[in-house]
Amino acid sequence: MQNLNAKIIRPTFLLDKAKCITNIESMLAKAQRNNTRLRPHFKTHQSAAIGAWFKERGVEDIAVSSMEMAVYFANAGWKDITLAIPINVREIDSINELASKIQLNLVVESQETIRFLQLELKHAVGVFIKVDTGYHRSGVPAEATGSICLLVDLMKESDKLDCKGFLAHTGHNYQAADQEEIHKNHSRTLLALNELKDVFRKDIPEIQVSLGDTPACSISEEFYGIDEIRPGNFVFYDIMQYVLGSCDENQIAVAMACPVIARNIDRNELVIHGGGVHFSKEYLEADDEGTKLFGSIVRITDNGWSEILGGGFLASLSQEHGIIRCSDELFDEFGIGDLIGILPVHSCMTANLMRRFMTTEGEWIETMNS
Amino acid sequence: MQNLNAKIIRPTFLLDKAKCITNIESMLAKAQRNNTRLRPHFKTHQSAAIGAWFKERGVEDIAVSSMEMAVYFANAGWKDITLAIPINVREIDSINELASKIQLNLVVESQETIRFLQLELKHAVGVFIKVDTGYHRSGVPAEATGSICLLVDLMKESDKLDCKGFLAHTGHNYQAADQEEIHKNHSRTLLALNELKDVFRKDIPEIQVSLGDTPACSISEEFYGIDEIRPGNFVFYDIMQYVLGSCDENQIAVAMACPVIARNIDRNELVIHGGGVHFSKEYLEADDEGTKLFGSIVRITDNGWSEILGGGFLASLSQEHGIIRCSDELFDEFGIGDLIGILPVHSCMTANLMRRFMTTEGEWIETMNS
Repeated sequence: MQNLNAKIIRPTFLLDKAKCITNIESMLAKAQRNNTRLRPHFKTHQSAAIGAWFKERGVEDIAVSSMEMAVYFANAGWKDITLAIPINVREIDSINELASKIQLNLVVESQETIRFLQLELKHAVGVFIKVDTGYHRSGVPAEATGSICLLVDLMKESDKLDCKGFLAHTGHNYQAADQEEIHKNHSRTLLALNELKDVFRKDIPEIQVSLGDTPACSISEEFYGIDEIRPGNFVFYDIMQYVLGSCDENQIAVAMACPVIARNIDRNELVIHGGGVHFSKEYLEADDEGTKLFGSIVRITDNGWSEILGGGFLASLSQEHGIIRCSDELFDEFGIGDLIGILPVHSCMTANLMRRFMTTEGEWIETMNS
Repeated sequence: MQNLNAKIIRPTFLLDKAKCITNIESMLAKAQRNNTRLRPHFKTHQSAAIGAWFKERGVEDIAVSSMEMAVYFANAGWKDITLAIPINVREIDSINELASKIQLNLVVESQETIRFLQLELKHAVGVFIKVDTGYHRSGVPAEATGSICLLVDLMKESDKLDCKGFLAHTGHNYQAADQEEIHKNHSRTLLALNELKDVFRKDIPEIQVSLGDTPACSISEEFYGIDEIRPGNFVFYDIMQYVLGSCDENQIAVAMACPVIARNIDRNELVIHGGGVHFSKEYLEADDEGTKLFGSIVRITDNGWSEILGGGFLASLSQEHGIIRCSDELFDEFGIGDLIGILPVHSCMTANLMRRFMTTEGEWIETMNS
């Protein structure tokens, strides 16, 4: 048995490897059941060591959100990487270098970018056209088949642009009021991608469609016609996903462990070392009055953490301090120097800030930011 | 003349060294005018190179917000460092090691912590009692002289605990509705600290009081009885400080430069590479309807940036993407691959995430996180 309590000195990102592996295996099983490929998004963990847990289970293709991340994972041996963000044309030198080594897939959404690539690419790349199925962050509207056709045709003018198909992100699922809304959003994305496939299949027989967001990939069992799914957060999950219904509490594979540095009995508040530079300032609204919730409380055990404790939550964050508002009972439980566990609201942002993770076995896991 | 545009490839934290130096010199001059010591808080920049700009101008004492930061700056030659957060007792080994090398000042607020230090300290440290003058994050209420007296007396039992005095942070200035409220909050802090000094001066003739927050230190000219001020953010400033009235626009010494990666003409939105992992998710409310503002827009020039451009703002952030909502005019100005400048809402958080800064002369500045 480990004694985590003795190993932790300052704010620490704890990772339950067993839960993590279960999350990976569940999503992989779901992809297999639905005859689709899992191309996990590695922006959540940014770690070659965690990437290896996927590779050991047969995953060969990944998505990333920056060129630096693509280069890092290529150096870790990944050979098929989709840079799932509209390309930054200023990075053309790195793109050319990486495209000479691996199957690099880029995301485009404008004629301007395709023309740039026609002129500047030195090696072949796969290209996905980003389509917007309702999130309205980026992408060509999925119903604008005329505009999409122009992009597809433009790519044919270059032997270095291999049009792979269409890529969508149902990011509006994060604003969904309930699971029904996630199902509706997901259905619309499925339909839109399948319709696009129907339109362009004659022209490009191998045309593929890719969708990805952890809520829909976790909640739905419907993926007809989808060639690959790109969820990322599911490897860790977090309170946001728990609230959306993507996971149950026991699937959340990460917790912050933070030391109590002050206690205020008049306000029933525990002050922790752990602030915006550890958690990020991402929050959920806890009620209709705008109360912010930055994390839920758990008890750190010898080798993990307890279920969520009622009667308290992480209520505010400054740069290095956090304030936990709590019931009398919870307040009495934690003294100066004690560790308190916090399940983060958004594990991707917290992992990015923490840069190194400690497993519940007490081992350190490095990331590209370590 | 530099050509910043040609040097910047991906999201870059730009630093105008001349503005930075002016900010340092203005605050130093204000401290001197008011017969108080400037102990700048280095959590904002976390950089030995920027620290050197203070040292060259005679600054000898600094504040930091974590032990790691204290060790980093001690290694950079700083000999008098206040760790301005209630101590994390789990870090006692690092505290003992650092206290053997430099004048280390700690912050306490409970008998429990003082008793712990009595037992565990191996070297003398300076100790400030954290007092709460209205922020209600941590500290003993400044009016609770009885409780404070107990802490002072308890410290006398150890020859390693050198009670230096009282430390306050008027953090509620960040929620102030207007400058008048900042002046009121600051007056209360001044009064409270001076009253404490009066009570304890007989007992400890060398008693000192320390206050620090950028809004009050920037706006006020009243610092009677205050031995040191600990502002941090003023070295860079940012949109939050600009809105509070701490600085004018030209004093903001940092801007993010981000490439445009997509444009949506139907929504008049520019998509930039630059998200929550670059800016942090800190925001200001732009209106009464809850519109969030994550940054203000400027034009990147050959050697710096323009004044704030009307007609647009950074309206949302996901992990790597940012959305700029803009007028027709602003939209037309920026094409794919162009750089757009963004003055961040909270420069401390953005600097912490970016980890390296590029000066407007095109040179890289490293930090403890580089």
